[in-house]
Amino acid sequence: MRALVKVSAGPGMELRDVPVPQCGPSDALIRVHYAGVCGTDLHIWEWDAWASARLRPPVVIGHEFAGEVAQLGREAQAAGLLSVGDLVTAEGHIVCGHCLQCRIGESHLCHRTSIIGVDRDGAFAEYIVMPASNVMKLDGIPPEVGAIMDPTGNAVHTVLQGGMATGGRVLIIGCGPIGCFAVGVARAAGASLVVASDLNPKRLELARAMGAHVTLDARTDDVPARMHELTGDDGADLVCEMSGHPAGHATAFAAARLGGRINLLGTPSRPTEVNFARDVIFKGLTLYGVTGRRMYDTWDVMRRFLASGQLDPRPVITHRFPLERMADAIQVIKDGQAGKVILEIGA
Amino acid sequence: MRALVKVSAGPGMELRDVPVPQCGPSDALIRVHYAGVCGTDLHIWEWDAWASARLRPPVVIGHEFAGEVAQLGREAQAAGLLSVGDLVTAEGHIVCGHCLQCRIGESHLCHRTSIIGVDRDGAFAEYIVMPASNVMKLDGIPPEVGAIMDPTGNAVHTVLQGGMATGGRVLIIGCGPIGCFAVGVARAAGASLVVASDLNPKRLELARAMGAHVTLDARTDDVPARMHELTGDDGADLVCEMSGHPAGHATAFAAARLGGRINLLGTPSRPTEVNFARDVIFKGLTLYGVTGRRMYDTWDVMRRFLASGQLDPRPVITHRFPLERMADAIQVIKDGQAGKVILEIGA
Amino acid sequence: MRALVKVSAGPGMELRDVPVPQCGPSDALIRVHYAGVCGTDLHIWEWDAWASARLRPPVVIGHEFAGEVAQLGREAQAAGLLSVGDLVTAEGHIVCGHCLQCRIGESHLCHRTSIIGVDRDGAFAEYIVMPASNVMKLDGIPPEVGAIMDPTGNAVHTVLQGGMATGGRVLIIGCGPIGCFAVGVARAAGASLVVASDLNPKRLELARAMGAHVTLDARTDDVPARMHELTGDDGADLVCEMSGHPAGHATAFAAARLGGRINLLGTPSRPTEVNFARDVIFKGLTLYGVTGRRMYDTWDVMRRFLASGQLDPRPVITHRFPLERMADAIQVIKDGQAGKVILEIGA
Amino acid sequence: MRALVKVSAGPGMELRDVPVPQCGPSDALIRVHYAGVCGTDLHIWEWDAWASARLRPPVVIGHEFAGEVAQLGREAQAAGLLSVGDLVTAEGHIVCGHCLQCRIGESHLCHRTSIIGVDRDGAFAEYIVMPASNVMKLDGIPPEVGAIMDPTGNAVHTVLQGGMATGGRVLIIGCGPIGCFAVGVARAAGASLVVASDLNPKRLELARAMGAHVTLDARTDDVPARMHELTGDDGADLVCEMSGHPAGHATAFAAARLGGRINLLGTPSRPTEVNFARDVIFKGLTLYGVTGRRMYDTWDVMRRFLASGQLDPRPVITHRFPLERMADAIQVIKDGQAGKVILEIGA
Repeated sequence: MRALVKVSAGPGMELRDVPVPQCGPSDALIRVHYAGVCGTDLHIWEWDAWASARLRPPVVIGHEFAGEVAQLGREAQAAGLLSVGDLVTAEGHIVCGHCLQCRIGESHLCHRTSIIGVDRDGAFAEYIVMPASNVMKLDGIPPEVGAIMDPTGNAVHTVLQGGMATGGRVLIIGCGPIGCFAVGVARAAGASLVVASDLNPKRLELARAMGAHVTLDARTDDVPARMHELTGDDGADLVCEMSGHPAGHATAFAAARLGGRINLLGTPSRPTEVNFARDVIFKGLTLYGVTGRRMYDTWDVMRRFLASGQLDPRPVITHRFPLERMADAIQVIKDGQAGKVILEIGA
Repeated sequence: MRALVKVSAGPGMELRDVPVPQCGPSDALIRVHYAGVCGTDLHIWEWDAWASARLRPPVVIGHEFAGEVAQLGREAQAAGLLSVGDLVTAEGHIVCGHCLQCRIGESHLCHRTSIIGVDRDGAFAEYIVMPASNVMKLDGIPPEVGAIMDPTGNAVHTVLQGGMATGGRVLIIGCGPIGCFAVGVARAAGASLVVASDLNPKRLELARAMGAHVTLDARTDDVPARMHELTGDDGADLVCEMSGHPAGHATAFAAARLGGRINLLGTPSRPTEVNFARDVIFKGLTLYGVTGRRMYDTWDVMRRFLASGQLDPRPVITHRFPLERMADAIQVIKDGQAGKVILEIGA
Repeated sequence: MRALVKVSAGPGMELRDVPVPQCGPSDALIRVHYAGVCGTDLHIWEWDAWASARLRPPVVIGHEFAGEVAQLGREAQAAGLLSVGDLVTAEGHIVCGHCLQCRIGESHLCHRTSIIGVDRDGAFAEYIVMPASNVMKLDGIPPEVGAIMDPTGNAVHTVLQGGMATGGRVLIIGCGPIGCFAVGVARAAGASLVVASDLNPKRLELARAMGAHVTLDARTDDVPARMHELTGDDGADLVCEMSGHPAGHATAFAAARLGGRINLLGTPSRPTEVNFARDVIFKGLTLYGVTGRRMYDTWDVMRRFLASGQLDPRPVITHRFPLERMADAIQVIKDGQAGKVILEIGA
Repeated sequence: MRALVKVSAGPGMELRDVPVPQCGPSDALIRVHYAGVCGTDLHIWEWDAWASARLRPPVVIGHEFAGEVAQLGREAQAAGLLSVGDLVTAEGHIVCGHCLQCRIGESHLCHRTSIIGVDRDGAFAEYIVMPASNVMKLDGIPPEVGAIMDPTGNAVHTVLQGGMATGGRVLIIGCGPIGCFAVGVARAAGASLVVASDLNPKRLELARAMGAHVTLDARTDDVPARMHELTGDDGADLVCEMSGHPAGHATAFAAARLGGRINLLGTPSRPTEVNFARDVIFKGLTLYGVTGRRMYDTWDVMRRFLASGQLDPRPVITHRFPLERMADAIQVIKDGQAGKVILEIGA
């Protein structure tokens, strides 16, 4: 089969012919229809410090996908939950099931997690093998949406954690694809005001398409001041920090209301100076670090939002490429012109 | 009456004769028996940047106290909850009752809060006037304990917020009086392991007296490594950061388990560099800034802990002085030799 | 002024001329524009067992209203939150502020509560006096909506308690006015499926107007079976029991999913036989009894839902009468032909 | 091996020689040291309506046990969490892992649960086979305690659900073994008052041995009245209903405070008349039905309580028998003279 492979240490990926992976007794072999390209894939392409420390080439890249069940292992079949031909997506974090975090409902934090497309072969390929327990049927959700449920789930986790979205006044800092999904999730969850900020007018346009009541251009707007204006001087109940920039952190602290909450998803590349006294303690703030998707309550609520039509992430998809044009996909992301980019593989 | 007054901008306080304050219709006039000396009082004595920006002399200092109801205003009497002669303590934060935070059960974060001994006349005096709704009967709790329920309440808020104390493995960083109270609160709340760290052996001794299972000397022990050793390599479920030092923050991040919680009470005097990616996001941590006492659920559970004997903060009291020896009280605190220092006023 | 008064023990009410009530120092005198007629008012009119045990005539009836501030007491004015001329509504439960429940954020359960129109003079009058702290500005919410925020708040409390509405599959049993409001609240809060059941086709029509995805006629539909069909055989995450009938309870138990929740608002007039083993314990259900509105978090989220347009309760208003036609208002309610009935008093 | 087998429909059990069960690839074969006898086993012995409807003989009985790992399947060994020779206990509910409840952290409510000693061969035998993922190491907890962690876990679930135990005033209704364990759990969790009631003086003695502050004899004491007396007329924050009698339900409703919580574990054999208006709605109560143990947060906190010495359930163990004296074990339970009865099998 064809697959995008990080062949050896260094930038780029290669489109190679590799064997179709073996389907173990509790696995599902899935023919990939669509796959999403993520910022992580850009780091892997560029072979930055994180990528070179984590990946052990050769490895097939890609962790966001949807496809069709092509084969089921003996035990997976016996479980009776999947059938050959089912349209599915999957949680790409394969966890140990035995550590403290796995035992108490926090398996998204399992320290033995193996991630597809990073620690083991991934989804930029014609086929992928997954443990059947990580696989979920789409049940009518369109496959191209299925292909981006991994990052949409990050947005669901970020917006819902702490229970402040419903009726809440929410500020989304950073309108990359996950920030834009978060706008839609906040609307679906009944937020009464959704404000989105970014430096990039194209991204703000996507945020508006996803339902932002107000968009702010952080180059020219004083975001915390505007957030206070829009909320009778209270500030935001919930800030979703999706930018990963120290300037985003500063904005988050200044925009959050007394007793508010900041859920942080954007991963900074360098430390931020935090004035804990002024910005956290005297404000009574709660901060929460978002890793992945809660397994599987995040998926459950996301499937409901998508199936009911409360949430439709498709306006964020701006580009589609075949597998052989991965270099172009990487380029549009680097150019900052893209929302979500997906690869059309076997649809 | 005699009172310790910050007479004008600048260091020190003066013991003065001032009029007994007027008891308004919804107020209680209280004859003070004991008062606690707090780090805040030290800042006020020294007239640091915070104090000079906040206080408007002349003002009577002191915000931790217990005493006896001497007089009740008309409406306070009609409410029927207090009687002349009752032994009482009081919440020293007087809040507006109308802002968003006051309306939704977060009045400890009211931005119009007026604090006794800071924004209005306080308790280092023979009498103090309080709104009756801030006053609580001791119902058998000893008055010298009543005098330190304000800081003990800070510890209750810090330990209980987030619900991770019961059965939890708790690390207390910083064993000043509130850190030591937190040790006792964690034990009362059913923590399965309470570890306390400090640089000062006398303080570690007080932490042991309050029930710490293990004390660590941060000068010689690798606190995060020891915390992992003591927890089968999981780390702390809950870290109470009571030191306010950047080194305490670093220890807290390193010692907390994946999915753990850090409740921050110690107020730093300068910013801390935070590696949000490594220390918050990938760890799935929750951080929470502690201001004051929740009004009044913190008080309710504290009263129960004290009345049942589950919690006894008295081992932390190391020094007692009369009002006229305030300079000595300040000195023992500055020397780092003291646990909790109380003033004996009218007992 | 004119007022509807329960003059003495027995059925009916009388339209009388009574003195305008006195505005105390911390009160607001409000000129009533609109008032809502509630099932409770019907009980009072009919003088049933509950009414005769509770009311002490003479008393002005009515507890749902909106109007305009006509006068402020000295302290209410000093607080600076209200001005003469403000359009307002009010929480009709006047609580003690001092009991355990008031202290820990559950003042809707204060056992010393005094209710307007029941325990003290109410709102079916040209003027009413309220403690200013119970009064809330409408800030652009239409006054006829303001007049029904009390029962809409009951619906908000019922739907949101326990956090299962967002993304949830919700069954509303009983489509009287509060049931219909609950349909709209569930939609506003991001429920993915809202099913409403009643015996009365007119009420089901109102439920549809408020956004129910599916309405079931309990005379002909097997409600639990249909709920399971609509949810892939899971059952309802949340059941709002608004009927107060034993048959409604039976439906609720059968329709709720394993681990689901039943919030009960409808007050039955007789006991229900409950099979705790089968229906509560083996199903792992949570049941919650709804009294009033949480003070004031329910009001805060309701105001946001109404101000943002996420919730509009006006389709439920079916009849409007002047004060002198109260007998007609009572009659349309008894006939089962009405949704919400409001009195136009001084608009 | 020797095993107690329900050979066919009808009362009693037989001690038989049966083959040692086969250890599958992801299983652990455990040599049983001790096993606990449960009320469920009595129902099975007596062959009551529930038992005859549920069991499909022949089946080895027994679901509470501890023992030593004798053999590990290939995958269980590869997982690296268990070794031959480990002392262990196990969760006896084997769940599907795929249903809604399993996916959202409520697998104790999985409707495909298979229970050892009921739906598949159990632990009253020299050996038992369990899925390795259900097995937990004792890590120093004595094996006779390990043998009763299943019912102790029921008590942990009952006491901790809803977060009202810490600092709470708790009433335990019914002092059978799980009620007595609940007394100890409430003390471990930091309850400020633990009151236990029963009709049987021997059981009240066990409750006192487990740390009850007050025991009430329901034959002579007015339990709700005494509970109000002991709490300044507030009533209980948390009632644990462990009796399963309608009289216990009535007591629970009357003893709970406004806004309190009733967690129900005792499974009644017949319906209870509930006055929802008076007892649930106007009181703002929360009721919760307890099934099994939360998987695995209940186990995690229980292991901590036991390992730290905060909880020691051994005073409740009153009788020990060898496997061949099962009839005697059943008899002491029926006589009401027993606390917890354990079988000594291969220790």
